[in-house]
Amino acid sequence: MHIEELATPVLVVDIDALDHNIDAMAAARPGPALRPHVKAFKSTEMARYVAGRGGHRNFCCATLREIRGMAFAGLGDDLLLANETLDAAVLATLVRRDDARITVAVDSDETVDVAVEAGADVLIDVDVGLPRCGCRPDDASRLAERARSGGVSVRGVMGYEGHVVGNPDREARTAAVAESMDLLRRAHDAVGGDVVSAGGTGTYDLHDWATEVQAGSYLLMDTAYSELDLPFTQALSVWSTVVSVSPGRWAVLDAGLKAFGMDHGNPTVDGHPVFFCSDEHTTVLPDSNGGLPAIGSKVPMTPAHVDPTVAYHETLVAVSAGNVVDRWPVDLRGW
Amino acid sequence: MHIEELATPVLVVDIDALDHNIDAMAAARPGPALRPHVKAFKSTEMARYVAGRGGHRNFCCATLREIRGMAFAGLGDDLLLANETLDAAVLATLVRRDDARITVAVDSDETVDVAVEAGADVLIDVDVGLPRCGCRPDDASRLAERARSGGVSVRGVMGYEGHVVGNPDREARTAAVAESMDLLRRAHDAVGGDVVSAGGTGTYDLHDWATEVQAGSYLLMDTAYSELDLPFTQALSVWSTVVSVSPGRWAVLDAGLKAFGMDHGNPTVDGHPVFFCSDEHTTVLPDSNGGLPAIGSKVPMTPAHVDPTVAYHETLVAVSAGNVVDRWPVDLRGW
Repeated sequence: MHIEELATPVLVVDIDALDHNIDAMAAARPGPALRPHVKAFKSTEMARYVAGRGGHRNFCCATLREIRGMAFAGLGDDLLLANETLDAAVLATLVRRDDARITVAVDSDETVDVAVEAGADVLIDVDVGLPRCGCRPDDASRLAERARSGGVSVRGVMGYEGHVVGNPDREARTAAVAESMDLLRRAHDAVGGDVVSAGGTGTYDLHDWATEVQAGSYLLMDTAYSELDLPFTQALSVWSTVVSVSPGRWAVLDAGLKAFGMDHGNPTVDGHPVFFCSDEHTTVLPDSNGGLPAIGSKVPMTPAHVDPTVAYHETLVAVSAGNVVDRWPVDLRGW
Repeated sequence: MHIEELATPVLVVDIDALDHNIDAMAAARPGPALRPHVKAFKSTEMARYVAGRGGHRNFCCATLREIRGMAFAGLGDDLLLANETLDAAVLATLVRRDDARITVAVDSDETVDVAVEAGADVLIDVDVGLPRCGCRPDDASRLAERARSGGVSVRGVMGYEGHVVGNPDREARTAAVAESMDLLRRAHDAVGGDVVSAGGTGTYDLHDWATEVQAGSYLLMDTAYSELDLPFTQALSVWSTVVSVSPGRWAVLDAGLKAFGMDHGNPTVDGHPVFFCSDEHTTVLPDSNGGLPAIGSKVPMTPAHVDPTVAYHETLVAVSAGNVVDRWPVDLRGW
């Protein structure tokens, strides 16, 4: 089936671009040096593809549902919930499975106690500058001690420099990563363990000390990350149909606010400025020659932010040279 | 079950507030004078509730999937696809059902021909000032003629003054509605038919000529519409759990960009300024007394925009006085 025969809106991954991205990352960070982040694509089928081609077997998840889905799919070699949870009952159910190794981030007495109750291994999550989760570096050893006293294994530390990953100035990005890693090193010296987990797509090649980088956006990419000097290429689009044209003034595409994560701004359309998005529509303006696409024609749109875009869709349609080659259910949505 | 026992993030509708909104609207626009818009809540169970309490049997849909779901659910008395479609095959399948009356908006030769091919009744969709779908008013009679020549019934006209509905100045809103309705009246004079469909939540009481108003947001409401002088109250929230606290600095809630439509801005939290949202988190700042919620506590958040928020969730949990009374699947998501 040709891509233009698909009902729209439809989420499309260009598998040749995806292959390029997998290969570029695997060359820089092979095997366990990368922990692909499932939150960016929320599909066990796609995770299997990434594992197969990229050679990575350890995955990172943001929700318990992602952990559960990956375990059920046979991808549970080493799953990190890179997030805090207070849900001891669900976590315990997952830990009791014998087909998955589950590690959870902790940053407080309460989250340590949840991990202990569930019997989950932990990483001490350290605040390295992003105002979000993570304990103060000086508090890391106390939390590690609490976890060990409770009988669970402390595998090491984690620190996400999310305030840095989008900085387009590579020199500034490099310096900021070094500052963050100084904080994480201080915590690791006190905590110990084999694992130092850090980073993201924007800083994947700026880590010489962390044992693994957590990255997900590199696989599909978006217009926000494309402003950085990264070797990854746009692999994700939402295809739409032109449902209305006001001649000489605008055209209306049938993909809107319910097809795109909008926090990084509007999607983009080649040649046509985006006027505005509404629930099921995007109005685009004429190109520089005054031209508009014809009613019924198909138009690819590029999301500004991958992760919340994927979370709106049921299926990732894999395409090569314009033809559908696979369909990956987005089966890890929700909570 | 108490609301605080629910796993988070979870979409919650306060059914007492919903009842108030249904009643306030039904008093102003009873029965067929209102065509509730399914796109705002995407749930056949909730549509059934609105039909039962509000007395409205005619619904408005934005997608073919919404039409299909409503027909299957036995809510097909009079379904309007208030949107253009080029998918004659799917539309024809729906029209052939004998349990639904389906009418579709058309604004071009191409969309008229699709309706004719599918055998669907039509409304002529007229551009009344919103730069989106709709033909020019003076093109309406030609399109109506084309539809009638093709053997389908032209039920009337539709015009959505979406550029007006959010204007907080009631006087300006009233004047702008009148201008839009002048355009729609011109088209209706040429087209004929019993139906004049217009409006939205922000202009529901400013229509004295349209035979029906299309409104959906009034049911659940959001922070954007709450700035208008409307008699509807906030009925929708997303409940979250505090998963991390940096004492004196911030708290982190477990609902973020994948739980909220973000085009109208951040969700709000009572008492706590929202610092920023990321995929699965919202970081909030201390309240005016420097206080932060405790780790593990539950916090309701109010979405800035209802429709794309609901589209991220699988279930609407109906709550009365803090207790769960029903669960409505959000079964009309996707396309």
